[in-house]
Amino acid sequence: MEKSMHGGDLYRTSQIYGFKENEILDFSSNINALGLSEQLKELLHARIDGLVNYPDPECNELREELSQYLGVPKSNIITGNGASEMIYLLLDVLKPNKILIPAPCFSEYSRAALIAACDVEYHELKEENGFRLNMNEFIKHMNDFTGADDAVLLCNPNNPTSAMISKSELLDLVESAQEKEIKIIIDEAFIELTVGGNKNSMVEYLNQFNNLYIFRALTKILAVPGLRLGYALCSRDVINEMWKKKIPWSVNSLSCSIGKVLNNDVQYFAATEAWLSEEKEWLFRELSGIGKLKVFKPDTNFILLKLLGKESTSDILKHRLIAEGILIRDASNFIYLNEKFIRVAVKDRESNEKLIRALTMAL
Amino acid sequence: MEKSMHGGDLYRTSQIYGFKENEILDFSSNINALGLSEQLKELLHARIDGLVNYPDPECNELREELSQYLGVPKSNIITGNGASEMIYLLLDVLKPNKILIPAPCFSEYSRAALIAACDVEYHELKEENGFRLNMNEFIKHMNDFTGADDAVLLCNPNNPTSAMISKSELLDLVESAQEKEIKIIIDEAFIELTVGGNKNSMVEYLNQFNNLYIFRALTKILAVPGLRLGYALCSRDVINEMWKKKIPWSVNSLSCSIGKVLNNDVQYFAATEAWLSEEKEWLFRELSGIGKLKVFKPDTNFILLKLLGKESTSDILKHRLIAEGILIRDASNFIYLNEKFIRVAVKDRESNEKLIRALTMAL
Repeated sequence: MEKSMHGGDLYRTSQIYGFKENEILDFSSNINALGLSEQLKELLHARIDGLVNYPDPECNELREELSQYLGVPKSNIITGNGASEMIYLLLDVLKPNKILIPAPCFSEYSRAALIAACDVEYHELKEENGFRLNMNEFIKHMNDFTGADDAVLLCNPNNPTSAMISKSELLDLVESAQEKEIKIIIDEAFIELTVGGNKNSMVEYLNQFNNLYIFRALTKILAVPGLRLGYALCSRDVINEMWKKKIPWSVNSLSCSIGKVLNNDVQYFAATEAWLSEEKEWLFRELSGIGKLKVFKPDTNFILLKLLGKESTSDILKHRLIAEGILIRDASNFIYLNEKFIRVAVKDRESNEKLIRALTMAL
Repeated sequence: MEKSMHGGDLYRTSQIYGFKENEILDFSSNINALGLSEQLKELLHARIDGLVNYPDPECNELREELSQYLGVPKSNIITGNGASEMIYLLLDVLKPNKILIPAPCFSEYSRAALIAACDVEYHELKEENGFRLNMNEFIKHMNDFTGADDAVLLCNPNNPTSAMISKSELLDLVESAQEKEIKIIIDEAFIELTVGGNKNSMVEYLNQFNNLYIFRALTKILAVPGLRLGYALCSRDVINEMWKKKIPWSVNSLSCSIGKVLNNDVQYFAATEAWLSEEKEWLFRELSGIGKLKVFKPDTNFILLKLLGKESTSDILKHRLIAEGILIRDASNFIYLNEKFIRVAVKDRESNEKLIRALTMAL
């Protein structure tokens, strides 16, 4: 049995630490703290009876909504069982020999690369730079390490560092890569949970660059990670190859139906933006005020923290906070991090206040 | 874009033929005609709010329910996104050089074999035998074609023929295969929709034969194909290899939660058995009475039919029936079948009567 070490694994952690799933404030998974919108809940309840039919294997209605939402033709969009299915499928189709990944990063990338039998090299993000990417150095590394048909994979904003790369820097990267026929894969799973949202996305450059691949999740922004839904955007040729290799019906009927929320639920998206711009800054300030913590400036809805106390470790702190009904992400298993690092999600004010109080006591 | 040619593809067929999805009686997909049980509906509605959490990637609760349901240890069970994910994953792990498949058969097998880069040979099921397998001939074919580490894949009862193989014959097969280190993979997606249900399953022999692999769907018996849920049963070693290669969280939270229906909803299973034993025979008799049709005796909840009229074709008949609000499965694209074959699901009496009337008129 594969032992998962992701955030949000409430079942396993509840078994290990002995709490009930509904008794804990979960700061370990990074989803929209507003929870499910009323419109989405209504839609889901209304679709239960329809589960008696198979899902549309091509997710046509969903892809039409996504097309409208992003201004990308439907034929450049493929949907799947979470962003996870997309990255596994994309690497399986592209089959790069080598892949360069800035790290610390989401651990599924290296697992997918391993399964696709491609060599992984990490580009170390330095703590002294706040774990932010220096694009010039990265492009140099890319040119040294990769060649034609190899790939670069980066998460923007990055998990677990919460750091975003600007569009102009990404444009430099994509242009340099294009000359050398290197593929640039960007995981934008958290892009809608940044201030500016889709304006920070590279989606608008898809028709300009054939070497640009983007994948995304819908379940983080809509707060339904239990539902599973991701999608990828790239050239039609590669999308077609992905359809050929994809297992059929991997997107369930409920997920197939939620696209319209993207284009209709204006109120929810406005409330999300208001919450995020307010709470991200509030939590950053309050965490910085505790002392005994190095707080890395967040660009999205989670914050990376380093424990400065000599005796402090992520594991001990996690234990202590669980006793207070709070679950954080022990970030020690991310590449280049260690037992001094934790990650917390930005939640609603009341929950964030509880976190601050509990951390102040526990540190 | 991969063009799906499965039954149950209401979206595509409604686009092609110009009907609304809810205006048609769907005889093209083979699910429990009783529809969602009240207990299952209640459970699903109650779990919508919980979609705010990630699914348990190991589906522990579900696997415990399945363990109880089948009397198989939890560690011999892996769950996934439909039986589809299971067959793709299993072939990817087993990597047989060659695979022998009785046909006509479900088309995803050859697609999965193609993706796993293994050679497929079909064992032709003969119309003159009612498309039923002659086990002696099949074992001979297996011994001629396959060697150590190769595989045999069969669907029991078989789609689209609706023919079941007895356990004693399957035991002969598994024993012969074991001597030669050949793997026997059995798709039992429809086993619960036979008279006798789980008593017809090979599950009880799993601990005796290391070369036996079984996969199943939960969504046919529970009438929720829109939800996606399948599982595989085999030796712990192979299950562990499958977990290592599986994408995480491929089973959504709602699917993770439905296991308890299997062990609790006694009434639904009793009603299913009563419906099936009654309606399967009724529909078989009535179809046989129409004339102009050769009706193959069904062992599960669908019936294969051959059009005997000189001018009749599956395509024309499908068109005609759609005008009457009825969707059948044009079975012409199954290997060894042709434009004379259709497949219909067994539904409730009222729907079945409509089918009989419409067929009588259309033929």
